[in-house]
Amino acid sequence: MAIPCAPFIASEKLSTASAPSLSPSPVILSQDELKKIAAYKAVEFVESGMVVGLGTGSTAKHAVDRIADLLQQGKLKDIIGIPTSKQTHQQASSLGIPLSDLDSHPTLDLAIDGADEVDPDLNLVKGRGGSLLREKMIEGAAKKFVVIVDESKWVPHVGASGAMPVEVVPFCSKFTQDSLGKIFEYAGCVAKLRTLSGEEGGEPFVTDNGNYIVNLFFKSDIGDLGAASDAIHRLPGVIEHGMFIGMATAVIVAGELGVTVKTKS
Amino acid sequence: MAIPCAPFIASEKLSTASAPSLSPSPVILSQDELKKIAAYKAVEFVESGMVVGLGTGSTAKHAVDRIADLLQQGKLKDIIGIPTSKQTHQQASSLGIPLSDLDSHPTLDLAIDGADEVDPDLNLVKGRGGSLLREKMIEGAAKKFVVIVDESKWVPHVGASGAMPVEVVPFCSKFTQDSLGKIFEYAGCVAKLRTLSGEEGGEPFVTDNGNYIVNLFFKSDIGDLGAASDAIHRLPGVIEHGMFIGMATAVIVAGELGVTVKTKS
Repeated sequence: MAIPCAPFIASEKLSTASAPSLSPSPVILSQDELKKIAAYKAVEFVESGMVVGLGTGSTAKHAVDRIADLLQQGKLKDIIGIPTSKQTHQQASSLGIPLSDLDSHPTLDLAIDGADEVDPDLNLVKGRGGSLLREKMIEGAAKKFVVIVDESKWVPHVGASGAMPVEVVPFCSKFTQDSLGKIFEYAGCVAKLRTLSGEEGGEPFVTDNGNYIVNLFFKSDIGDLGAASDAIHRLPGVIEHGMFIGMATAVIVAGELGVTVKTKS
Repeated sequence: MAIPCAPFIASEKLSTASAPSLSPSPVILSQDELKKIAAYKAVEFVESGMVVGLGTGSTAKHAVDRIADLLQQGKLKDIIGIPTSKQTHQQASSLGIPLSDLDSHPTLDLAIDGADEVDPDLNLVKGRGGSLLREKMIEGAAKKFVVIVDESKWVPHVGASGAMPVEVVPFCSKFTQDSLGKIFEYAGCVAKLRTLSGEEGGEPFVTDNGNYIVNLFFKSDIGDLGAASDAIHRLPGVIEHGMFIGMATAVIVAGELGVTVKTKS
């Protein structure tokens, strides 16, 4: 179900010092400004007393900034943040947001995070930034999961705009990489180990959990995502993949023509 | 299909210096002697030129010793061993067995390993020694997987004799432990983090891959193992579990009355 909002007009809420500067006449907003608009909209779901999952990446960063602002202004109180990466832990901690973890707070009221892709059924691809595992653990434990994206993240199907990352154990990662490629041979899959330089044969990128990432590039739609997910999980060397299937409660999309909130039909 | 062998009689093959000492009159064999008998029987499947997965644990250790003996005697040639743990790597290396890994040899001719439990359908529980992940990767890549056990390992159903271990990421492992317990609430499951001391609250046991182990204790049969496996794999904090479902080609059981080879019906 799509709930289109009115074309974006600078509101009091969004014309604060840290919001993007907007003139009444039409302007072309940068991708970062669109991300900020989506992030600010998502933070409207946050209420005092909530345990909130704090996402990772350039869009989620704006949401974390905004929550910190509202706490400082006294408009929000008693928030406990659960960061989804070391990076977000550092950001939120430096902004004075009280933090905890899943072990102490196994149920979250809300989680807010960006995504690399959103498909028509609100399935996501996440983890191109490298933190998919902690994100999936935390966002899977949230009663509501609000996703914030700019309109460039809409795709017709998973993997249409780039890599679908899979976190794997370093032990014999080439074997796991090849096994992953074979599962999706029917979709023209190319599996590549993520490296620090981005070049093949380079030093592997290492996740917060000490593991590697294999990026899967599909030439065509992989079809049934549930079946794909189970097939990936059954490989012993795999820890987690970046498809977040049926997890998003709402997706907030900021585009040139305004903010749209999409919820599960 | 059960292929009962004749009651065990000391043969030339098994009365070598390193084989258990047996007199013609009935004797009570120790558990370790039974393990050695099963291991030696399994090594009869090894042929020159094979790539062989080398298991981990007290039973598999005898098979590795035996392969090394036969290589030294010149009865086997051109074997490449793929060790399933750091411990087995060290043992095999010190015995002079040429070693490689899955990345270089993604298909194995044969793997030999022990098991903690074998059910009537030849499904296994493995990993009470802590090395289930590497074992599953390597044994899953073998054309034939021969399991060697003493008769105490037969169980009516998975988990009947003790823990079913699950390797989990250290990040928020308590959350994952609780989630695992909830999946199997219907079977009276108790989930416990494996510790070095074996006592609750102690220092966690760390696997070869830097992860933790959660031991699941079931009060009753968990039923459909395929469904149980998928449910475990879908938890984001889980890496791998110790159920080896449909993987064993043959199970060699050594008991007081002889050696039995069971194969899939």
